[in-house]
Amino acid sequence: MKASSETEIVDYIRKRAGNRYAPSLVRSIGDDCAVVRPPAGYDLVFTTDFAIEHRHFSIDTHSGADVGHKALARSLSDLAAMGAEPLFCLVSLALSEKIASWFVPDFYRGLLALAKRHRIALAGGDLSRHDAVIADVMCCGTVPKGEAMLRSAAKPGDLIYVTGSLGASAAGLRLQKGPAWLRHRRPTPRIEAGLALRRMGVRSAMDLSDGLSLDLARLCAESKVGAVLESALLPVDKAATREEALDGGEDYELLFTCPARKKLPAKIGKLAITKIGEITARKRQSIVLDGKPMPRLGFDHFK
Amino acid sequence: MKASSETEIVDYIRKRAGNRYAPSLVRSIGDDCAVVRPPAGYDLVFTTDFAIEHRHFSIDTHSGADVGHKALARSLSDLAAMGAEPLFCLVSLALSEKIASWFVPDFYRGLLALAKRHRIALAGGDLSRHDAVIADVMCCGTVPKGEAMLRSAAKPGDLIYVTGSLGASAAGLRLQKGPAWLRHRRPTPRIEAGLALRRMGVRSAMDLSDGLSLDLARLCAESKVGAVLESALLPVDKAATREEALDGGEDYELLFTCPARKKLPAKIGKLAITKIGEITARKRQSIVLDGKPMPRLGFDHFK
Repeated sequence: MKASSETEIVDYIRKRAGNRYAPSLVRSIGDDCAVVRPPAGYDLVFTTDFAIEHRHFSIDTHSGADVGHKALARSLSDLAAMGAEPLFCLVSLALSEKIASWFVPDFYRGLLALAKRHRIALAGGDLSRHDAVIADVMCCGTVPKGEAMLRSAAKPGDLIYVTGSLGASAAGLRLQKGPAWLRHRRPTPRIEAGLALRRMGVRSAMDLSDGLSLDLARLCAESKVGAVLESALLPVDKAATREEALDGGEDYELLFTCPARKKLPAKIGKLAITKIGEITARKRQSIVLDGKPMPRLGFDHFK
Repeated sequence: MKASSETEIVDYIRKRAGNRYAPSLVRSIGDDCAVVRPPAGYDLVFTTDFAIEHRHFSIDTHSGADVGHKALARSLSDLAAMGAEPLFCLVSLALSEKIASWFVPDFYRGLLALAKRHRIALAGGDLSRHDAVIADVMCCGTVPKGEAMLRSAAKPGDLIYVTGSLGASAAGLRLQKGPAWLRHRRPTPRIEAGLALRRMGVRSAMDLSDGLSLDLARLCAESKVGAVLESALLPVDKAATREEALDGGEDYELLFTCPARKKLPAKIGKLAITKIGEITARKRQSIVLDGKPMPRLGFDHFK
């Protein structure tokens, strides 16, 4: 691509945005706003996530396509947590003019490949210059009215589950090779699992972006409950340590709870579901791991 | 504010977000996604805009409240261009931990004051660390089904209008004082004018963010039409030069067209409406100013 002007970059993206997935998308790239005709009987869910150079990735170790994939995956993972079906996204991208000609096509190649897999339309965005690469991806999804899975819906007595394995992303970042490193660079948003769980009647979920210890504390705070965990039950990824499984960020697995009487399958497709503990009534020490108060060591941007 | 953790910053924002404006907002800050129940009979419009330190503002000359105001105003201006009523916004903010304790409250004070004026709810967002201040604001608005004003709806024979005066923002940046400087730092999104024009039956509009010469070229390209302009008709701001009125960015006035037979008032509220030219059939030279082809000198991020 010759990226000699903003207009040319926008034309380049517009030609490749596969917007046939969203019949409710009335207008997309090219106007001041995208226009969406919401389908009747559904709630819409919205989330936005930054992917920032030197914080979420490095262009020394991540290709443009890795960054495009990860930027969209982070936001799709929030849709998965609500049990939502992807509808459309808006992509804001800032980068230096020095790298625009190769980075822009590579970034959109990675982003649009993941968009196609999950049938989410690229409806618009913004483009600006900045000396570091900054992407901010807003995703919108649909959920049948009133059925979104929430952080605030966990109840004492619920069992606590996670999908997949934990700690792979942190292990990948440490090892910089192998399948864990690929999981770090190209996380898989658990869209199908989120949809399946919501259809099974699960109502309480979130995605694991900042580490189980911190994210479970957030779910407990929103639901005003406590939790007991057993470390022996954790599905520690084979590349990861127990600490990485507990505190490592960016696994993008789903954390969810549901009443013990509800029978869940052992797997959704090829993805394992593992029981890791139980929701309790709120106490002074809100989360107990192996009989002791669990410290919150997950990732906080301002700590 | 003591901004010692991300959780504390989010709690601070959550307490101040005035979300009583949006009855269709089912869940907002605190979950993985905001949940919106779309009102029946309306299209939803979506836009997102960056406000980036050293490009759109400088923290040497703009207060945190200026930046918060401007970041939201840029995005609200796109809703105005569609004739939309503001519904909710998502705010992504990256900044350095060194300035977080004073900048975050100041930024949200400016943003939420403008949000209150236009009754737009703050439904969520993202927070990250970065050495420069980056805000990305996504706004959603409602328009009665099929009535959004579009860049692509201008027709040959339509008269071309702008709201307010042109060049003030560029003049303000040059002068760094007086009312033009305030307009540069605290632009007014033309929400009421956009609503009024849409209700009068105007169907073709956009906002002036990159300068009349470039933005009119974009409207003409989307509508596949040309235009003739007369420089003597331009409502040049009293602080601005003719060049600043033609090519200066960030005025956030509305540019719109409508058939000559439609009678428009001279003002909407206190805001003047000025006829500046006419839409023509597309020719080789798409835009003609005072009898000569008009160069496109507006602001392009990658030129």
